[in-house]
Amino acid sequence: MTSTADLMGSAPMLDQAIARMVEVLGEDSVLTQEQQVREFHDPYEGEGATEFQPSFVVQPSTVEEVQAVVRIAAEFGIRLWTSSMGRNFGYGGSAPVVNGSVVLNLRQMNRILEINEEAGYVLVEPGVRFFDLYNELRARGSKLMMSVPDLGWGNIIGNALEHGYGYTVNGDNAAAACGMEVVLASGEVVRTGQGAITDSPLWQRHKRGFGPSLDSLFMQSNFGIVTKMGLWLMPEPEIFTTGSVICHRDEDIAGLIDALRPLMLDGTVQGHPLIVSSPEPPDGRRFSPMDDTTGQSKKAKLSATLPPGRWDARVSFYGPSALVNAREEMLRAAVSHLPGVTVELRTYPGGVDPEQVHPLDLVPAGIPNMFLLDLMHKHFGESVGHIDFSPVIPFSGEAAARHDAMVQQILDEADLAAGSGWIANSRSLVGVCMVFFDVNDADEARAAREAVRKMSARAAEWGWAEYRAHPLLIEDVTSQFDFNNHALHRLYSRLKDALDPAGILSPGNHGIWPSALRP
Amino acid sequence: MTSTADLMGSAPMLDQAIARMVEVLGEDSVLTQEQQVREFHDPYEGEGATEFQPSFVVQPSTVEEVQAVVRIAAEFGIRLWTSSMGRNFGYGGSAPVVNGSVVLNLRQMNRILEINEEAGYVLVEPGVRFFDLYNELRARGSKLMMSVPDLGWGNIIGNALEHGYGYTVNGDNAAAACGMEVVLASGEVVRTGQGAITDSPLWQRHKRGFGPSLDSLFMQSNFGIVTKMGLWLMPEPEIFTTGSVICHRDEDIAGLIDALRPLMLDGTVQGHPLIVSSPEPPDGRRFSPMDDTTGQSKKAKLSATLPPGRWDARVSFYGPSALVNAREEMLRAAVSHLPGVTVELRTYPGGVDPEQVHPLDLVPAGIPNMFLLDLMHKHFGESVGHIDFSPVIPFSGEAAARHDAMVQQILDEADLAAGSGWIANSRSLVGVCMVFFDVNDADEARAAREAVRKMSARAAEWGWAEYRAHPLLIEDVTSQFDFNNHALHRLYSRLKDALDPAGILSPGNHGIWPSALRP
Repeated sequence: MTSTADLMGSAPMLDQAIARMVEVLGEDSVLTQEQQVREFHDPYEGEGATEFQPSFVVQPSTVEEVQAVVRIAAEFGIRLWTSSMGRNFGYGGSAPVVNGSVVLNLRQMNRILEINEEAGYVLVEPGVRFFDLYNELRARGSKLMMSVPDLGWGNIIGNALEHGYGYTVNGDNAAAACGMEVVLASGEVVRTGQGAITDSPLWQRHKRGFGPSLDSLFMQSNFGIVTKMGLWLMPEPEIFTTGSVICHRDEDIAGLIDALRPLMLDGTVQGHPLIVSSPEPPDGRRFSPMDDTTGQSKKAKLSATLPPGRWDARVSFYGPSALVNAREEMLRAAVSHLPGVTVELRTYPGGVDPEQVHPLDLVPAGIPNMFLLDLMHKHFGESVGHIDFSPVIPFSGEAAARHDAMVQQILDEADLAAGSGWIANSRSLVGVCMVFFDVNDADEARAAREAVRKMSARAAEWGWAEYRAHPLLIEDVTSQFDFNNHALHRLYSRLKDALDPAGILSPGNHGIWPSALRP
Repeated sequence: MTSTADLMGSAPMLDQAIARMVEVLGEDSVLTQEQQVREFHDPYEGEGATEFQPSFVVQPSTVEEVQAVVRIAAEFGIRLWTSSMGRNFGYGGSAPVVNGSVVLNLRQMNRILEINEEAGYVLVEPGVRFFDLYNELRARGSKLMMSVPDLGWGNIIGNALEHGYGYTVNGDNAAAACGMEVVLASGEVVRTGQGAITDSPLWQRHKRGFGPSLDSLFMQSNFGIVTKMGLWLMPEPEIFTTGSVICHRDEDIAGLIDALRPLMLDGTVQGHPLIVSSPEPPDGRRFSPMDDTTGQSKKAKLSATLPPGRWDARVSFYGPSALVNAREEMLRAAVSHLPGVTVELRTYPGGVDPEQVHPLDLVPAGIPNMFLLDLMHKHFGESVGHIDFSPVIPFSGEAAARHDAMVQQILDEADLAAGSGWIANSRSLVGVCMVFFDVNDADEARAAREAVRKMSARAAEWGWAEYRAHPLLIEDVTSQFDFNNHALHRLYSRLKDALDPAGILSPGNHGIWPSALRP
């Protein structure tokens, strides 16, 4: 077990705290052995890491147990670091900002509390993974369709709370959230929105109550522990058409982005297209997922891991065939002027059997899978890790071109490869750049972290900041939000002081500290 | 001037406070004469009202002046009650909850700071009315289309902050807001989201920053004074088709609502349809806007004020003609089984000249107007007032039928008439029931207020609460949010204590008070 010296006075105090946790949760739900705790470190920290170290892990199974854990933490001055599954691997997994924090892991709270077919929503606990919900929907013969991120092993609440994305109509998971139950640092339970009316029929149907809406206050923050959340799902469409708009030259990105922009603004293209940047290998030869890339260059491995083309915009249309076909026509017309463009689309019926779906189309089909991780492992090896750079930038061809040139230059200088691109919103692009490194190669790991820091600093010159970040980068990003002498972050501190003055809950998460603890 | 005895120790103190306000704002921006202050009372309070009385009015023109006003208020222990235009007439206009509050009216801050054609947004101050923005867009030849509420004289920020609705694609104004500037009770200025990055190009393009999003915290609350706000607009569509689905019998409402529900859930019907309930006059004869209804029954006057039919669902489709026509066909198919249904639709080109638009279609055309108020005055007289009952209910035919029966019964018992119906969201309906009364008829006014209280109490039995409310009803509504001993409202108080412990800003707004002042 890592020392909790940063936090607690003495070993006997620590023993006493653990004993109390065991008393409340049972022995199996308090993990103190090094091999048990290993999973809750940054999965890519490598050997000999000294920062962001958890001490032990508690896994409550009920809201009442979460309340009890919070009260014990307050009593002993323990810092808790909340994680649900902890699968946000490029951002540190369950690794806490403050060394020696106790991971409050919510994996055992994994009930699907409601699936409402007619109104199109679910109510889930934090341990419910995308896989779990998908399986349950299929088992019930549901006609609801999910939005899933690239890897299906994560949990729904954790993803939404981190402002994570899927790609279909409700792919902005934070925006699709409706109604929460939250345990505050005081141990009190609050329900938000309509849920503040006891037994409300509207908790997951209407996002607001009477007075300010607080759901967004508990996202990317440490103001409370979310123990239940509603999520809106779309009805299964009659058909969906999904695939790629592919361009081949470096300079095509500006035209491609500017062609997509009006289609996103007026809703012709639905959901959140992913635009992938896959730089040409030096010899110009592209690889496919099935190729053996052993001994090939990093860019060759990359081209085998990512979808085809120098640029590949993954677009989708969902609904009745008349609407889907009309949307497809408009897309084809809008990109037809791009030199050498190819549009490769495939159409499926709603509720299609996963076996019938092209692996690249599983995510737009709302089917959770591990295809991308499998490809990463195949081409970069089992010990591949990544650290992510994810700035928000304007939805413009000029900005995207500038962004990509900067990223590729920094990668080239450091001889690194990255899965890079953007997730599109109506008026902004969210950069996703997974910089790969070998976890067992300390030099490459250091180079990758350094590269991401450089990218972050360059983006900051243009007023672009990351939408989420590895603990390593949190204070860098926080410092960019500097308007009026960092007024927003001082306001976060005041809210933290009001809700959790002792800093029991995840101190340092997104740069939020009680005033007294701010570094 | 109304006494500020509730607030301040002595007349000399009050004089001193006014003198300081005049010093900062100039004499013309401090309104103390009774005839000047009149407009900032509840416009329908009638003679001899004693509750919700403002004392005087200050009208800053800049953010710096707002900061100065807040600091003077803190110094003298004055309560400020913020209003922008104060046109939410059914909910009390600018009338403060706490007697003797000073109205902080933001009408003079009326700059349109940015119109971004390409990214589809505007940045405005609180004094910018729907009329103002429309005129400016037309003057610039803009290809952006607004969403407007029934009456165009209100301001954009005030409407969004009250969770107000328009009817087109971005008709949920609170959801279309993107980025705020806020003056806190401390006098500090904060910018939210990407705006916390100095000179960010993304303040109005991306809703979130790094850490929790606070925009919703400043809606329906008294945690700060919003001095700038971004709003997303849709691109002008190629065409739009708008009109009515009309049913004729009391019992048709359940079928109509259940037919619309899947079309809203999957996005076939766009925006926020208004479904109007217009009870049949006793003799069965319906009236039209052009009829003289002098001497007719209240229900006859109502039928002349509201759109045709016992039930009239106002639906709209926006976009390229291929999509609009496909959507229209789906709507027609979905309601064709309803007995005696008629579908009356009209199609217009985007950017249509207002002169060419049917008066009923001005609102769905995004053209601000006063048509509804003119009709109210024509048929109910110039002294007509109203108080509104606006509960959120599930999107189901059964709930809508139950709701309407309850409302009509209470109206009939009290011999009152009301413009009643719902605004549709994807999974909920927001009731709007404007109970009319003659402002000069104290008995009728009392009966109207009593009727709304009764409706509120009946709705509460079903777990339905109002989404906004007249000051008279605020504490009733607040008390309905009772989960875990009113945990949410206690949380609001803790936030208020952190941000405004003295209760300078709009105390009692939406039932939010500092702990020390809670009644």
